[in-house]
Amino acid sequence: MTSVISNLSISLDGYVAGPNQSIDNPLGEQGLRLHEWMFASAGFYRLFDEEGGEESPDSDLITRDWNRIGAHIMGRNMFAPGRGEWDMEWRGWWGEVPPYHAPVFVLSHYPREPLPMDGGTTFTFVTGGIDDALKRARAAAGERDVSIGGGASTVRQYLKAGLIDELTLHIVPITLGAGERLFDDVGDVKLRPTEVLASPAVTHIAYRPD
Amino acid sequence: MTSVISNLSISLDGYVAGPNQSIDNPLGEQGLRLHEWMFASAGFYRLFDEEGGEESPDSDLITRDWNRIGAHIMGRNMFAPGRGEWDMEWRGWWGEVPPYHAPVFVLSHYPREPLPMDGGTTFTFVTGGIDDALKRARAAAGERDVSIGGGASTVRQYLKAGLIDELTLHIVPITLGAGERLFDDVGDVKLRPTEVLASPAVTHIAYRPD
Repeated sequence: MTSVISNLSISLDGYVAGPNQSIDNPLGEQGLRLHEWMFASAGFYRLFDEEGGEESPDSDLITRDWNRIGAHIMGRNMFAPGRGEWDMEWRGWWGEVPPYHAPVFVLSHYPREPLPMDGGTTFTFVTGGIDDALKRARAAAGERDVSIGGGASTVRQYLKAGLIDELTLHIVPITLGAGERLFDDVGDVKLRPTEVLASPAVTHIAYRPD
Repeated sequence: MTSVISNLSISLDGYVAGPNQSIDNPLGEQGLRLHEWMFASAGFYRLFDEEGGEESPDSDLITRDWNRIGAHIMGRNMFAPGRGEWDMEWRGWWGEVPPYHAPVFVLSHYPREPLPMDGGTTFTFVTGGIDDALKRARAAAGERDVSIGGGASTVRQYLKAGLIDELTLHIVPITLGAGERLFDDVGDVKLRPTEVLASPAVTHIAYRPD
């Protein structure tokens, strides 16, 4: 049975991305620091069919959670740095073999033909809003889960709409001081923790609506 | 060996108290919601020599952490609702037998004679600033720990000064939307989790400086 899930690294001060996102800083200034635990993990490299990183509970978590996902949804800003009409040369941040290996639905106000990549990823551009994207992602995911990948504003929209069944926060014990906060202006959220995994670098907490 | 510790309940959106603190709402609007897990715990009632609440891992944690403490430090706002010169009738929020059962150092700009209460608590008013209060609390604590009790701005001052050895966050899975944030304007904090305790209501994470 499909769950709608979202997994986000978050700082102690609540940021899921740094300020001033740009082509050089897709995660915003300092934003990469939120993901160092992932870059240290073998499970992260495996998504790219590469070797590197270390085996660890963090790494196992990445592999397990990624394997649950049958389709992804992301905001346009997570797919591309530009705004407005599409630059048709832009094929995502991830090179010719993106780590998704599954259908990816990209929210946008601008239509674009689907973009099949190597390794099983196809980017489909959805102009019908978050409900339409979710409907299509559910159909594509089969029995597996739908992941709301990011960025912050996309996850926030699904959270506000009560459409997320499981939200996993990777709590990174640093402060960023500025950037995009996940829980700003999401209304009255009430969750319950269903699984906690502690590692030396980060604390993973899975939540479901209470 | 004395550690300087601080234990705070914090919402998903980073608030440790609600907005508009007043004599009717000492923890700010909605602020009591951060402490419901505590009010459900037998360990909380035991601090007041009362019966109530349930035995649970949360309750054990309260008892264990409280017993480590040999002296407390708190900001004036945690002791009293008023500002300016002291209202000498005010003897704290906790009645004649406060739950501290230990010396409590209250930061203030206004001198006042020490206030001995029943049950072993004495409130001592410190006008010399956070370093002076810590020095006096260390002397009073003996081998036990010094707790920085709150509110947010007091803990923030000690955190910014690098004086906290162990910060325990009780992560309450709700949003408050407004209030006092612990990690606003604390500079570049970098911690490492040293102990994680999961309960159905709340996730307790102890951090030390990295």
